[in-house]
Amino acid sequence: MKTLPKLKIINDPIYGFITIPSLLVFQLIEHKYFQRLRRVSQMGFSYIVYPGAHHTRLHHALGAMFLMQKAVQVLKSKKVPISQKEEEGLYIAILLHDIGHGPFSHAMEHSIVENVSHEDISLRFMEALNQSFNQQLTVAIQIFKDEYPRKFFHQLVSGQLDMDRLDYLKRDSFYTGVSEGTVNSQRLIAMLNVRNDALVVEEKGIYSVENFIVARRLMYWQVYLHKTGVVAEQLLVRVLKRAKQLTAKGVELPASKALRFFLHNDIGLSDFSDEVLETFAKLDDNDVISAMKSWVDHEDFVLKNLCDMLLHRDLLKVKVKSKPFPVKKLKTKNEQLMSRYKISEEEAAYFVFSGKMENQAYSMEKDTINLLRKNGKIVDVAKASDQFNIEALSKSVVKYYMCYPKKQ
Amino acid sequence: MKTLPKLKIINDPIYGFITIPSLLVFQLIEHKYFQRLRRVSQMGFSYIVYPGAHHTRLHHALGAMFLMQKAVQVLKSKKVPISQKEEEGLYIAILLHDIGHGPFSHAMEHSIVENVSHEDISLRFMEALNQSFNQQLTVAIQIFKDEYPRKFFHQLVSGQLDMDRLDYLKRDSFYTGVSEGTVNSQRLIAMLNVRNDALVVEEKGIYSVENFIVARRLMYWQVYLHKTGVVAEQLLVRVLKRAKQLTAKGVELPASKALRFFLHNDIGLSDFSDEVLETFAKLDDNDVISAMKSWVDHEDFVLKNLCDMLLHRDLLKVKVKSKPFPVKKLKTKNEQLMSRYKISEEEAAYFVFSGKMENQAYSMEKDTINLLRKNGKIVDVAKASDQFNIEALSKSVVKYYMCYPKKQ
Amino acid sequence: MKTLPKLKIINDPIYGFITIPSLLVFQLIEHKYFQRLRRVSQMGFSYIVYPGAHHTRLHHALGAMFLMQKAVQVLKSKKVPISQKEEEGLYIAILLHDIGHGPFSHAMEHSIVENVSHEDISLRFMEALNQSFNQQLTVAIQIFKDEYPRKFFHQLVSGQLDMDRLDYLKRDSFYTGVSEGTVNSQRLIAMLNVRNDALVVEEKGIYSVENFIVARRLMYWQVYLHKTGVVAEQLLVRVLKRAKQLTAKGVELPASKALRFFLHNDIGLSDFSDEVLETFAKLDDNDVISAMKSWVDHEDFVLKNLCDMLLHRDLLKVKVKSKPFPVKKLKTKNEQLMSRYKISEEEAAYFVFSGKMENQAYSMEKDTINLLRKNGKIVDVAKASDQFNIEALSKSVVKYYMCYPKKQ
Amino acid sequence: MKTLPKLKIINDPIYGFITIPSLLVFQLIEHKYFQRLRRVSQMGFSYIVYPGAHHTRLHHALGAMFLMQKAVQVLKSKKVPISQKEEEGLYIAILLHDIGHGPFSHAMEHSIVENVSHEDISLRFMEALNQSFNQQLTVAIQIFKDEYPRKFFHQLVSGQLDMDRLDYLKRDSFYTGVSEGTVNSQRLIAMLNVRNDALVVEEKGIYSVENFIVARRLMYWQVYLHKTGVVAEQLLVRVLKRAKQLTAKGVELPASKALRFFLHNDIGLSDFSDEVLETFAKLDDNDVISAMKSWVDHEDFVLKNLCDMLLHRDLLKVKVKSKPFPVKKLKTKNEQLMSRYKISEEEAAYFVFSGKMENQAYSMEKDTINLLRKNGKIVDVAKASDQFNIEALSKSVVKYYMCYPKKQ
Repeated sequence: MKTLPKLKIINDPIYGFITIPSLLVFQLIEHKYFQRLRRVSQMGFSYIVYPGAHHTRLHHALGAMFLMQKAVQVLKSKKVPISQKEEEGLYIAILLHDIGHGPFSHAMEHSIVENVSHEDISLRFMEALNQSFNQQLTVAIQIFKDEYPRKFFHQLVSGQLDMDRLDYLKRDSFYTGVSEGTVNSQRLIAMLNVRNDALVVEEKGIYSVENFIVARRLMYWQVYLHKTGVVAEQLLVRVLKRAKQLTAKGVELPASKALRFFLHNDIGLSDFSDEVLETFAKLDDNDVISAMKSWVDHEDFVLKNLCDMLLHRDLLKVKVKSKPFPVKKLKTKNEQLMSRYKISEEEAAYFVFSGKMENQAYSMEKDTINLLRKNGKIVDVAKASDQFNIEALSKSVVKYYMCYPKKQ
Repeated sequence: MKTLPKLKIINDPIYGFITIPSLLVFQLIEHKYFQRLRRVSQMGFSYIVYPGAHHTRLHHALGAMFLMQKAVQVLKSKKVPISQKEEEGLYIAILLHDIGHGPFSHAMEHSIVENVSHEDISLRFMEALNQSFNQQLTVAIQIFKDEYPRKFFHQLVSGQLDMDRLDYLKRDSFYTGVSEGTVNSQRLIAMLNVRNDALVVEEKGIYSVENFIVARRLMYWQVYLHKTGVVAEQLLVRVLKRAKQLTAKGVELPASKALRFFLHNDIGLSDFSDEVLETFAKLDDNDVISAMKSWVDHEDFVLKNLCDMLLHRDLLKVKVKSKPFPVKKLKTKNEQLMSRYKISEEEAAYFVFSGKMENQAYSMEKDTINLLRKNGKIVDVAKASDQFNIEALSKSVVKYYMCYPKKQ
Repeated sequence: MKTLPKLKIINDPIYGFITIPSLLVFQLIEHKYFQRLRRVSQMGFSYIVYPGAHHTRLHHALGAMFLMQKAVQVLKSKKVPISQKEEEGLYIAILLHDIGHGPFSHAMEHSIVENVSHEDISLRFMEALNQSFNQQLTVAIQIFKDEYPRKFFHQLVSGQLDMDRLDYLKRDSFYTGVSEGTVNSQRLIAMLNVRNDALVVEEKGIYSVENFIVARRLMYWQVYLHKTGVVAEQLLVRVLKRAKQLTAKGVELPASKALRFFLHNDIGLSDFSDEVLETFAKLDDNDVISAMKSWVDHEDFVLKNLCDMLLHRDLLKVKVKSKPFPVKKLKTKNEQLMSRYKISEEEAAYFVFSGKMENQAYSMEKDTINLLRKNGKIVDVAKASDQFNIEALSKSVVKYYMCYPKKQ
Repeated sequence: MKTLPKLKIINDPIYGFITIPSLLVFQLIEHKYFQRLRRVSQMGFSYIVYPGAHHTRLHHALGAMFLMQKAVQVLKSKKVPISQKEEEGLYIAILLHDIGHGPFSHAMEHSIVENVSHEDISLRFMEALNQSFNQQLTVAIQIFKDEYPRKFFHQLVSGQLDMDRLDYLKRDSFYTGVSEGTVNSQRLIAMLNVRNDALVVEEKGIYSVENFIVARRLMYWQVYLHKTGVVAEQLLVRVLKRAKQLTAKGVELPASKALRFFLHNDIGLSDFSDEVLETFAKLDDNDVISAMKSWVDHEDFVLKNLCDMLLHRDLLKVKVKSKPFPVKKLKTKNEQLMSRYKISEEEAAYFVFSGKMENQAYSMEKDTINLLRKNGKIVDVAKASDQFNIEALSKSVVKYYMCYPKKQ
C-alpha cells in the first residue's frame, strides 16, 4: 500500500494518537461520504441521559481502524502472514463498516427507509467508492461480505469479538462516564491468534473475554437500552412515521431536500440506485433535528407534541417490566388521552404504546468466541469457563416497556 | 434553598457524578432555554481538527456548576460565611453564564447579531427566567452583573481564575485529547480563600496557578486558535455575511424560521425584545448546518462554495506569521481568483483574506490573580513568582493569518 | 467530632484529594501503628507480575475512608440519620480495619504467627489505641466487631459490598493496569440505601452490582491468584517455615529483632499481649526482604535457594489444572531433585509441592447483597437478576497447582 | 536483533502494555542487577508527602524503553535510517541508564559512596554486563557515553528532551496524583526529527515543549523539592553520615553485610572494582530502612532520634525562603537544643541545619532543545517562542531552607 508523504496523526482522547496507515485510507477519510459521519451521532439520543455522549460515527470508525492496526501487528508478530493488500483491505473494511448509518441510526432503518439495514447501505457506499477509487476497495468489500477466503478477516470486522465492538464499548463507556462498562481492548487484542483461518483467543484471556461479555451486557441495559433513551428513540420513530403519514395525505412539511425525498418515497433495498444513494449521503442528524424544530410549530397535534417532547426533553413516562403489559392498561391510558384532547384512537396511540427490548449478551449458536487451549484444542468460551456464567448469559433477555404521557 | 425530593445525579466522564443542589436549579436545567444548549457545541468547529470535541455548552455549564459546589465547600470549610441564598445564587449564575451563546458562538456575535456579546444575551435570558421563576434569580443576576456587594462572588463566576475557565480548560483538554492542556481544578479550588471580599490563592498554590496560565496559553494556540479551526470559523462568518447580503438584495434563502429572522433583520442589543429573545432561543447549531446544507446547491458562486468547503472539510489554505501579510500578496491572489472564475473583486475577497489572532495568557491590568502570603500580604501572582515567566506572558501575543484557495 | 484547625488534604491519583474528616482521625493517621502501613505492600508479591503494584496498605486504608465519607454523604441525603459520633466511628473502623496486616499479609497468618487472622490483630491494635486515645474508639470497635446495634454500619466496613472491597478493587485495578477490573465505586455508593437497619442497593443498580461481582472474580483469577504470584507467596511461606525449623534446631539466623522474636516463638491469638503487639508493630515488608537478602548466603540448601528464587525472580515452574495432580507425579519430581542435589525427601518437598486456589465470586449464604425493588421488596441480587449468571457465580471455584524446579 | 520466541508483554497502568523488543533485552531485564531495581523506589522519600509514589526504578526503566520504541518508530517513519543493531543499542542504553542508582538515590551519592554519581555506577554495571553478554552491549555503552558517532542517539537517552524525562515526568505525575505535571510524551515524540545528526522538534510542537518545561518546573518545586520530602532526604543523609562516624569510632552498628561494607569503607569511583560492584548490587531500599529500624533503639542520641523521625514521620520543622537564613538564627536554635538535651554542638547540628535547593527549568547553555522551522532553519526553543517566558525560565532558581526540631 502506498504510504502518505507525511505522517498524519489524529488526536484521540482514548488511544492518544491514531496514525493513518496509507494514502488510500487518507483519501477515503477525506471523502465527503466519510466526512458526513461527523454529523451522525454514535449513540443517537443517549445524550439525553448521558450528556457526554456526543461522539460521532466518524470518531468510532477511526478508533476501530486503530484497533485493527493493533490486531494486525499482534497477528503478524505471531507469524500469521498478512499481505500488504490484505492489511489495507482490513483497514478499509473496518473504516467503512458503518458508513451506511443514517441519522439517529437504528431507529431510521424502519422509518426513513423501509427495512433496509445500515449494513446494506454501507455496502452500497463501498461499491460506489470502489468505482471512484479504481477498484482498490475490492479486497475490503470481499472481507466485509465474508467472501474473502481467509475467514478470520471477516471475524475481525464483524463477529462477537470484532474491532467494532472493542472500540464502541470502550468509547461509549468513556464518553458516557459509565466507567465499569470499559473493556481492555488492548489485552483482548494481544491474546488473539489464528487457527484454521479462524480467530481464537489464547486460553489465559478467558477472564478478559468474560469481562468483555458482561461489560457489553451492562452497556446494553444501563446505556443503550436505558429506558429514557428508548422512549426518545421511539418518539423519533413516531415523529417520522407521522411525518410520512401526513406527507402521504398531501401535507407539505418543511424539511431538507434530502429528508423530503425520503418522506415522499418508500425506499427499500432494491430502490437504492446511485441517485438514491447520493441523496441518502446528504442526510444526517441535522436534517432530522431541524425538521423537528420547524414541525414543533405545525398544526398537527401529534407531530407538534412529539417534536416538542423530544426537543425540550419533556418525554413520556415509561415503565419497564419483565412481562408484557396488559392490553387493558394501554387501552385505559389511550382512552383518557382521547377524551382529554379530543383526538382519535390512532392519534392517541402515538403517545401510548408498549414494546419490548431484547439483548443477548453472548450467542452460542453462531460465530462463537473460541479459546485456544495450551494443548492446541479449540473450545467455545462458554464451555471453557470454570462456571456456567457465560452459558447463563447466552439466553436472550427480554424486557417490556410501556409509555404514556406524564400528566393526564 | 429547597432540596430535591430525590437525589438527582448526572454522569460526567470527568468528575464522575454531578449532583443537582436544589429544586430551583433542577427546574432551570429542565427549562427549554437551558436544554437548547444541548444543541450548541462548546468548541464550535474545533472538531474539524480534534474529532472528539463534540461536547456541548450544556455539559460545560453543568461542569462549571459542579466546580462551584466544590469551591463553596472549600470556602465554607475555611470559615467564609456563605448563606443558602448566596450559595444558590452562585450555582445559578455559573449555570447560566453562557446561556446566551448562539450557534458556533463567538463568530456569531458579529454576524447573526450586530455586536451583541453573548454575555448581554445571557443576561437577557436570566432576566426573562427571573420573571418566570418569581424573582428567585435576583441574587444570581446581581452576582453575574458584579452588582452584588461581596465582590468575590462575581470573581468565582467571571475572572482570571473562575469556575468557567477551570471547567472549560479541563473539559476541552479531555475531549480533544490534548492532555497537556489539563489543569488541576481540584487543587486550585482547594487553595482558594477570601480576603477583603476578594478571591485569593494560598501561597503554596503558586505553581499550580503558573501551570494553569501556561495550560491556557497552550490551549489557545494549539486548540482554540488552531489555524484550521480559525479558517473554518472565518468561512462560517463569511457564509452568514454573504447570506445576509443576498437576503438584503431580495434573494430568499432557505433557512429555519429563526435563522431567517436574523438574516432579515439587523439586531443590536437595543433590539432584544422578549420576542427577539424567544426567536434567538430557537437558534442552535442545527439551524446553521442545515442552512449550509441547502445553500451548497444555491446558484450564488460565493455562498455555494463557502458552504461546500465547510461541509466537506475542504478548506482554504492558511498561512500564519508573526507579521502582517503584505497587501500586495493578497491582491495578487485575489486577482488570480477573479480572472480564473470570472468573479468580482468583492466576491473573490470572500476566499482571499487576512486577519489576526490574539491571546493574552495573563493580564496584569485588571482582576489579577492574587496570592495570599503566609504573612498575610496579598500580591499579584506575576509579581510573586520566583521568575519573570508570568510577567513575560502578560504581554499580548498577536499572529497574522492569510487564507486563499488551495488550487488556483 | 472535633474538626481540624486547618483543611488537611492528601493527594490520591484515583480520587483526586482525600480530606481528613476530624482531629481524632488525623491523630490516628499520624500514629506510628498506622504509619507502619506505609511499609506493608497492599498486594504482596503481585508486583512480580504487575510492576506497578507497589501501593501500600496505608494508601488503601485512606482510600476506603474516602469512600466511607461518600457513603455517609449519600445515606444522609436519603434521610438515614447518622450522628457525628457514629460518623467518626465509621471512619475510624474502616481506616483501621486492616491495621493488623503483617508483612506480605495473608501468607504470614500461618507462618509468622500461628493461625492468627489479621482481623484479630487489627482488633488488638484498635483496643490498644482506644486506651491511648481515651476510649474515643469505642464506637469504631463496636462497629468493627459487629456489636453496634445498627447493623448496616458493620456492613459498610465488612460485607460483600463494603468500602474495603470498593476501594481495593478500584485501586488494585488502577495500579496493576488491569483496567477491566475496575468498579464504579461512586455509582455503587450512590445507589446505597438502608432498610430495617440493613444495607440495600436500589434496584437500578443491579447491573453495576453484577459488574462488580464479575470484576472481583476477574481480579482474583487474573491478579490475586495469578500463578506466578501464587508461587512467590508459597515460596515465602516456605522460607519462613524453613527459618522457623532451623531456628528450632538451634541455628541462629540473622534477622531483625522483631522478626527474630516470631521465629523463636509460636505466637497464637492468646499470646498476643501488649508486648507482643508492640513487637508485631515493628514488623513490615523490610524485615522479611532484608532477612531473605542475608539468608541467600546461608549454608542451608533449602533456605538459600528459596531466597535466591524470590529475590532474583527466578521462580519455580508452575502448572495449573482443574483437577488435583496425581501424587505419583509429585513423587517423581521429588525423587529427581533428591538424587540430583543429594538432599532429603523433606528438603526436596520445599521445591516440589502442590496446592489449591479457591475463589467464590459471590456468596448466597451469608450477608448477601440485597436489592431494594421500587415496590419496597428486598431481594438477594442473585435472585433478582434477569439471568442465572450471578447464581452461577456463587459456586466456589477451585483450581489446583503444582510447582517444581525449572531445570532438573 | 534476535526476537523472542513468544510475545512478552508487561502491564503498565500508563501505556497499557510494554512489549519486550528482543531476546537480549529480555535477558537483561531478567538479570539480577536489573531485578534489584524492583527494590529501589523511583522517588525516594516523596511518598511521605504523596502516598501513591511507591513506583520503582525498574518500572521507570521499562517505561523509558517503551517511549524509546515509539521514538524509533517515529524517526524511521520520517526516513531517519536506524539499523537493527543501533535500535537494540538504544533500547539497552535507556533501559540501563539508571541501573547505578543506590537506595534512596541522589542522597546516597554523597553518603554511601563518596562523590560517585549514579551515572558512573550505571556505566560500571553496563561494562560488567557487556562481559557477561559477550560484548553485545558495546553500542549501548557508546551511546550512553556519547561516543557513538550519531549524536542524536545520546540525546534520546540523555538530554533536555530525552526519553528518561518524558517517562519520569509522566510517571511521577501519574503516581503522585499531581495531574497538572503531566506531559504529552506521545505528542512530543511524534514531533521529533533529526537534522545534521542532532535531535530537533518540528515547529508546531513549540507549545508542547513550553508546556513540558513548565510541567517539569512544577514537578520540581511541588514534588521533588517539596519541603517535607527535602527534610526527609536530609535526615537520611545525616543518618548515614552519623552511622559512618560511629563506625569510624569503632561502634559496630547492625546492618546488612552490603551496607556494613559501605559504612566501613570510603568508596570513591576509583575503588569500584568488580567486587565492590557486586556488593553495591546487593544494596537497596530495604537495607537502609531495616538498618534504621534497628538503629532506632541504639543508644546514640543522634542516630536514634534521626531514625525515629524518619520512620514515624515525625520530621523536623522546615522553613523556606528566597534568601539565606542568618547564621545567628541557626546558632540560637542550636544552643537551645544543646542545653535542652545536654548534647554537643556537633550533635545538635544534626537537627539544626540549613541548605539550598536549586532548579533550572531550562538551560540555554548546552544541549538546547532545538526547533526545526518550516523553512529548514534550526533555532533554540527559548529564542523561537513568541514571548520571553522560556528565556525567563532559563535562569536558575535558588531557595533556602532551614530545619530544626518542632518542640524545643
